[in-house]
Amino acid sequence: MEYRIEKDTMGEVKVPANKLWGAQTERSRNNFKIGPAATMPLEVVYGFAYLKKAAAHTNCELGVLSEEKRDLIATACDEILAGKHDEQFPLVIWQTGSGTQSNMNVNEVVANRAHQLAGKTIGEGDKTLQPNDDVNKSQSSNDTFPTGMHIAAYKKIVEVTIPGVEQLHRTLVKKSEDFKDVVKIGRTHLMDATPLTLGQEFSGYASQLDHGLRALKNTLAHLSELALGGTAVGTGINTPKGYAVKVAEYIAKFTELPFVTAENKFEALAAHDAIVESHGALKQLAVSLNKIANDIRMLASGPRSGIGEITIPANEPGSSIMPGKVNPTQCEALTMVCAQVMGNDVAIGVGGMQGHYELNVFKPVMAANILQSAQLIGDACVSFDEHCAQGIEPNTEVIQKMLNNSLMLVTALNTKIGYYKAAEIANTAHKNGTTLKEEAVNLGYLTAEEFDAWVKPEDMVGNK
Amino acid sequence: MEYRIEKDTMGEVKVPANKLWGAQTERSRNNFKIGPAATMPLEVVYGFAYLKKAAAHTNCELGVLSEEKRDLIATACDEILAGKHDEQFPLVIWQTGSGTQSNMNVNEVVANRAHQLAGKTIGEGDKTLQPNDDVNKSQSSNDTFPTGMHIAAYKKIVEVTIPGVEQLHRTLVKKSEDFKDVVKIGRTHLMDATPLTLGQEFSGYASQLDHGLRALKNTLAHLSELALGGTAVGTGINTPKGYAVKVAEYIAKFTELPFVTAENKFEALAAHDAIVESHGALKQLAVSLNKIANDIRMLASGPRSGIGEITIPANEPGSSIMPGKVNPTQCEALTMVCAQVMGNDVAIGVGGMQGHYELNVFKPVMAANILQSAQLIGDACVSFDEHCAQGIEPNTEVIQKMLNNSLMLVTALNTKIGYYKAAEIANTAHKNGTTLKEEAVNLGYLTAEEFDAWVKPEDMVGNK
Amino acid sequence: MEYRIEKDTMGEVKVPANKLWGAQTERSRNNFKIGPAATMPLEVVYGFAYLKKAAAHTNCELGVLSEEKRDLIATACDEILAGKHDEQFPLVIWQTGSGTQSNMNVNEVVANRAHQLAGKTIGEGDKTLQPNDDVNKSQSSNDTFPTGMHIAAYKKIVEVTIPGVEQLHRTLVKKSEDFKDVVKIGRTHLMDATPLTLGQEFSGYASQLDHGLRALKNTLAHLSELALGGTAVGTGINTPKGYAVKVAEYIAKFTELPFVTAENKFEALAAHDAIVESHGALKQLAVSLNKIANDIRMLASGPRSGIGEITIPANEPGSSIMPGKVNPTQCEALTMVCAQVMGNDVAIGVGGMQGHYELNVFKPVMAANILQSAQLIGDACVSFDEHCAQGIEPNTEVIQKMLNNSLMLVTALNTKIGYYKAAEIANTAHKNGTTLKEEAVNLGYLTAEEFDAWVKPEDMVGNK
Amino acid sequence: MEYRIEKDTMGEVKVPANKLWGAQTERSRNNFKIGPAATMPLEVVYGFAYLKKAAAHTNCELGVLSEEKRDLIATACDEILAGKHDEQFPLVIWQTGSGTQSNMNVNEVVANRAHQLAGKTIGEGDKTLQPNDDVNKSQSSNDTFPTGMHIAAYKKIVEVTIPGVEQLHRTLVKKSEDFKDVVKIGRTHLMDATPLTLGQEFSGYASQLDHGLRALKNTLAHLSELALGGTAVGTGINTPKGYAVKVAEYIAKFTELPFVTAENKFEALAAHDAIVESHGALKQLAVSLNKIANDIRMLASGPRSGIGEITIPANEPGSSIMPGKVNPTQCEALTMVCAQVMGNDVAIGVGGMQGHYELNVFKPVMAANILQSAQLIGDACVSFDEHCAQGIEPNTEVIQKMLNNSLMLVTALNTKIGYYKAAEIANTAHKNGTTLKEEAVNLGYLTAEEFDAWVKPEDMVGNK
Repeated sequence: MEYRIEKDTMGEVKVPANKLWGAQTERSRNNFKIGPAATMPLEVVYGFAYLKKAAAHTNCELGVLSEEKRDLIATACDEILAGKHDEQFPLVIWQTGSGTQSNMNVNEVVANRAHQLAGKTIGEGDKTLQPNDDVNKSQSSNDTFPTGMHIAAYKKIVEVTIPGVEQLHRTLVKKSEDFKDVVKIGRTHLMDATPLTLGQEFSGYASQLDHGLRALKNTLAHLSELALGGTAVGTGINTPKGYAVKVAEYIAKFTELPFVTAENKFEALAAHDAIVESHGALKQLAVSLNKIANDIRMLASGPRSGIGEITIPANEPGSSIMPGKVNPTQCEALTMVCAQVMGNDVAIGVGGMQGHYELNVFKPVMAANILQSAQLIGDACVSFDEHCAQGIEPNTEVIQKMLNNSLMLVTALNTKIGYYKAAEIANTAHKNGTTLKEEAVNLGYLTAEEFDAWVKPEDMVGNK
Repeated sequence: MEYRIEKDTMGEVKVPANKLWGAQTERSRNNFKIGPAATMPLEVVYGFAYLKKAAAHTNCELGVLSEEKRDLIATACDEILAGKHDEQFPLVIWQTGSGTQSNMNVNEVVANRAHQLAGKTIGEGDKTLQPNDDVNKSQSSNDTFPTGMHIAAYKKIVEVTIPGVEQLHRTLVKKSEDFKDVVKIGRTHLMDATPLTLGQEFSGYASQLDHGLRALKNTLAHLSELALGGTAVGTGINTPKGYAVKVAEYIAKFTELPFVTAENKFEALAAHDAIVESHGALKQLAVSLNKIANDIRMLASGPRSGIGEITIPANEPGSSIMPGKVNPTQCEALTMVCAQVMGNDVAIGVGGMQGHYELNVFKPVMAANILQSAQLIGDACVSFDEHCAQGIEPNTEVIQKMLNNSLMLVTALNTKIGYYKAAEIANTAHKNGTTLKEEAVNLGYLTAEEFDAWVKPEDMVGNK
Repeated sequence: MEYRIEKDTMGEVKVPANKLWGAQTERSRNNFKIGPAATMPLEVVYGFAYLKKAAAHTNCELGVLSEEKRDLIATACDEILAGKHDEQFPLVIWQTGSGTQSNMNVNEVVANRAHQLAGKTIGEGDKTLQPNDDVNKSQSSNDTFPTGMHIAAYKKIVEVTIPGVEQLHRTLVKKSEDFKDVVKIGRTHLMDATPLTLGQEFSGYASQLDHGLRALKNTLAHLSELALGGTAVGTGINTPKGYAVKVAEYIAKFTELPFVTAENKFEALAAHDAIVESHGALKQLAVSLNKIANDIRMLASGPRSGIGEITIPANEPGSSIMPGKVNPTQCEALTMVCAQVMGNDVAIGVGGMQGHYELNVFKPVMAANILQSAQLIGDACVSFDEHCAQGIEPNTEVIQKMLNNSLMLVTALNTKIGYYKAAEIANTAHKNGTTLKEEAVNLGYLTAEEFDAWVKPEDMVGNK
Repeated sequence: MEYRIEKDTMGEVKVPANKLWGAQTERSRNNFKIGPAATMPLEVVYGFAYLKKAAAHTNCELGVLSEEKRDLIATACDEILAGKHDEQFPLVIWQTGSGTQSNMNVNEVVANRAHQLAGKTIGEGDKTLQPNDDVNKSQSSNDTFPTGMHIAAYKKIVEVTIPGVEQLHRTLVKKSEDFKDVVKIGRTHLMDATPLTLGQEFSGYASQLDHGLRALKNTLAHLSELALGGTAVGTGINTPKGYAVKVAEYIAKFTELPFVTAENKFEALAAHDAIVESHGALKQLAVSLNKIANDIRMLASGPRSGIGEITIPANEPGSSIMPGKVNPTQCEALTMVCAQVMGNDVAIGVGGMQGHYELNVFKPVMAANILQSAQLIGDACVSFDEHCAQGIEPNTEVIQKMLNNSLMLVTALNTKIGYYKAAEIANTAHKNGTTLKEEAVNLGYLTAEEFDAWVKPEDMVGNK
């Protein structure tokens, strides 16, 4: 491989000649061989691209950067955002905990790309832009990384998570309407209980997601706060007056998202409670989705020796050894995602609680985990929706049979003959393997006509 | 011990003669010898007392319970709420997951106490009230337990957690004002960084709690939703028309808290995402508090061989072997609470994700964990505030010494001579054990006068 | 209330006159009002009693304590171990993280009780024993608390957890033998699969616990290491020569458990990885038990509209509103315990990872969590065993019906006609709602006789 | 893109013409667009390659597969293991929870590659091998995936994790010897305490890893158990007699690792407690490593306003804004890894606890998490060792100054004048800002000569 020499304040470093990155990126590549390469999420890199461009505009507007430099930085950032330089970001999550090296990776790539844009050859001539003095002007890793992280997480949540969950939510609402007249047995403690409609059952799922979406949206205000302008320790050293507010405005403009400058920059550097907060809501969604997916696979279990009250689409052969088997694979993918999100929540909490003084140095691990969770929940909801939820149909024959068998229809008699006599009827029918009606009449607590009039599943499902 | 005979639908049970509980409570005592007795939180019992009273009023108003019975139930519930019957609730958390047995415990105690209130002797004569048909009228364990749990958790959060956190928050805000002129060295990565004021440092802590309180309050809307009226499976079987809305109004009236009937009763029985949601915010507070307490003990470390920039109150001898030792014990208690809350969050998540069909049967463990977390955070904040935070004072001599030593004051030169020359100055001073000024002048990058004019810590702390 | 004056190195404190504790205990009571009183587990106090007695014997043997003092300390400790002074330990978990105050609580109670044993009145005359110089001789909180914690946890695991799990394990082994001829349908992905015996199914449960017990026992070597002798920072300052080994021998003798002095005292004070390790195994058991309990409640679900392949004992009325309902309450209690243990594992990990320099100050929270988990798992296994597992019976009629229906018996044909033709048979039977045999013959892939010869569930359950 | 048609039991699927995979892989690609492509760890694919080859050999030896087919399968598997077909495994973690689709992916690639090896063109002519009947012979996804997962995890632990941790352990042992005469102040509660040597401090770290390695090795027995031979539900349906033991022997031979057939195949399919167990030990290592890395960055903090008792290598510029700053970046990478492992432990536990009946369907998420943790811990230990631990040096000047200042040297006087007088000396010196010696003499408790004779830090560090 061919190399060129790049320098930083510690000296010279050999860098692959065909790469745009510089000395510090290369040092990080060599010093942090932990896990596969390039695990730092590209979404964070794109977050950096937005903020570098915004910083350049702000610096120019506030008189500390030339228009020429502003435009070079902005163009390079636009190219990054267009995905043209994805292979220029080889660093891993497991680097310095402030993400300094990924900040420098962006600074170096932008500076070298700007050199090219200015018609020069990398490694030759005076640098058109200095990575630290120009691209990083009025910035520190300590405020840029959390800003990039917030931009990335916010975008992911509003572009992937929320639309995905909403898509599934719409289907669940539709199913709850479609199934509103399908009276079925209820189950509590996994045991036969009083009836409800299949629509009501699905309305509970929809309500879970509805509440979860509200909870998630509640967290966005905190996540919209940007650390940029705090620089090294939160004081904003080396920023021009008015910078913090202005740069957030530019980021809001470029991303078309309602970002604002953080209320308190010391909090924004030293703690990442906003990530903890938003991920808490993602975890809540995982809890909900696990319940929903679990119910659906239990309801669809069988086809002959399970519950079988609903059918779900058969998308693929289910077994490599059992011919003709079909499995609730979408439920499985979704619940695996839920398990991951449960774990990610702990990783984020453990990172979040260990900030020291002016800086939390668990930034990359927190960013990576929230981005993964946000992506997986969104994607898994779409997948589950399209390949499973939309295709759910009631198996009315099974539903009817299970409903009519149930001893818990006896509950309707509580208000007529009291709980204790009703219990006697149910217990006797259970012991004898008979019907409620038979035993109710045998025990002399009511007539057959009364039984028929009072014990009607369709009257036991509410709608008050 | 003397016993009396109580009955339920399964037959007779011997119950301690001097206790108000009945057959089902006794069965549970015998069947669930798991951990110490009486671990079901009394707060949940009190939540039940509120709702039983509200149900009695609603049932009466809707014409399905006599005024006499209503008043007996209400009086017994008021006695419970006054703490007169605390010893009548011997059950453990680790019972049926719907909390049925604790619901029945309350039903039995209220029924037997009402019998006494009616001037009769327990175990003699016809029961004045039936536990199931009267005290539990229009109710099921499945909707009462989550209602009692929400009442208990909501009350605990607004009466203990929020006031406790707010008390500490006020002190942190005051300290941030008191210390606004104390310029000190900043630390990032635990390493010397550019200066800030001690007040700014504390403003970050205050901001964390401020955001945490907002996050916690955001969750209260979900927690204010009450399952009551859903009865067995969410359909509201065996409730009179209008019951759900009305009973929530009574609960709101009796508790003076803004409870409302749940939007969707199926969600409210089968999932406890509201508990997951509120506890997520408690966990966020734990993450914040851990950072704050950790910082304070590091800042106070020493007294001679640590950081020692602040002093904290000496409340007790610190060591059984090292004479004269004083330790940051309040920080330790608080961070231990944070560790517990981190764990409780997982317990709640794991319980919350495993609901089945119409019921989640992890209710008691979820209730116990959120109540513990809410209590501990509130109490620990008060304790930490009164015995530590209020007494924090800056150790100005140390602060001044550490500030002046710092090589990171060089950062102020970036905008004058560029990052790279500034780095050279700092690196040289570090290598030679000299001062920035000496090396700046030696290297010929600026004059002594320029150095004095440009490198002023008090100008580096922002206030823009 | 009457008070007496007690003193420590910080001055005078008013202490309830009728209590044996002294100044430092009282300070802690006042300074740490966090959660309910007296939450520090008594097991830890008993652990202290063992070690204080052992230290007294060792100190005497090594010539630094008189026989008279040794005997007074030993007698007081024996009384504590006999449960005579339980009410003398009012402190909470949420105190100093080294447990210093609980160590002093024991020192003070032993000293004051010794004063009484010497025929004197507390608060009068010269102290017979000094809490620090005599009772705490050759000790520090920093080595006593972890020692007491290891004693308590080890005892709990071998006296409660292991016997409880072994009891359940024996029942599961017995059931696996009892049910060895009950051929039933298997289920994978909750879907019908090839058959196995009910005994095989239970053998899997037994094997899980068997592996879990081995894993737990593997952790005991680390837990048997005692920190005592390390004193303040691990160096053993102020201990006589030979003390550490000797005192561990005394503890082993008094507890009749194989305790040894820790290999490395610095590890034993500054880290509590032994607690993390043992609790990891408790968590593994929780994972196993959750699976087992979950399976059993699903297998027992119904009674009419569930799986219903087994029956479990009906121990109590299951519902306050649904008469005659019986629920898998022991499964629920057990799975709630599992959820708690999952949470406790995180609390312990979070505490364990945050030690600083020579000391981990999350000792009490780690102790409390492992003791709770160890107790709950042991108790819950016994409860589940006695009230559920022992009474499990196959519901052979249901089992037979479900087995014969299954389309997955087709798997036996793979080796005869290949996977792809077998799949065609199964799919066709599923589509047409017919039997495998009908379609196998219809499709012309085999004769009815061949089908009968090849597709025999009882031949499909292995036993190779 | 060009396509060819592949078929499975559900019909035809268009597959990219230049890929070796077949219909079921393609279905999975389309049905599970969750997160980035190809996230199923290649290590699992390689585990499959080992087991497919072993199965082919066993099947041949037991007379159910021809030698020709055996050799074709073996050759294709060897190519996979040589990394020649990495791009043929495009599936994601978030698929069916049994990993059926990844099993089929391997079956399809092996079958198609064998077709090529046999000199034919994919998609033309009769298939040389059938994916299900030949490559998957005597197998099911349900036993192959856990087998592949165990092979992958076991290999990763013994090839990456253990060597990495051992490498760091060796350095820590060496440092503990190198630093055995460096007497320094101890710190408990972050506060000044009695002295120890820097070597002793490092011996504690070494001991943590030593215990952690033992704990990890303890788990390998369970992990060495292979499910293969259990096929669909654990009964071994469709396997020839003797298959399970033999196939494990082949796997042991090919991998040169001590794999054995699982004691109980039902456990091995329905539960993955072995993964839970091994990851529990990885989590313990994470807990240890977090403590160690945290200590080292605190000890190295400064350079001027921190603790600064040790120096660590400066590997890269530390700050994008603060010139000359050097940070403990390896500590940060390592502690971020620890946070991730803490989270992964929960993901694995949550997955492990939710198995149903004969199958746990959280296999891929469990596999992915344990592989990530095992890789990260191993890599991070090596990185931390090479770029940080090996370069640690004591800063003797600072160490000496901090030691001499300490008031806790007074502890040596306990055995001479008692704890209470010693406390008075320390408290007075603290109040007056004087030395212990001055106040000891002033208070008249001992002479200057006695002080010098009794208070010698070098005598306070044990070595008994």
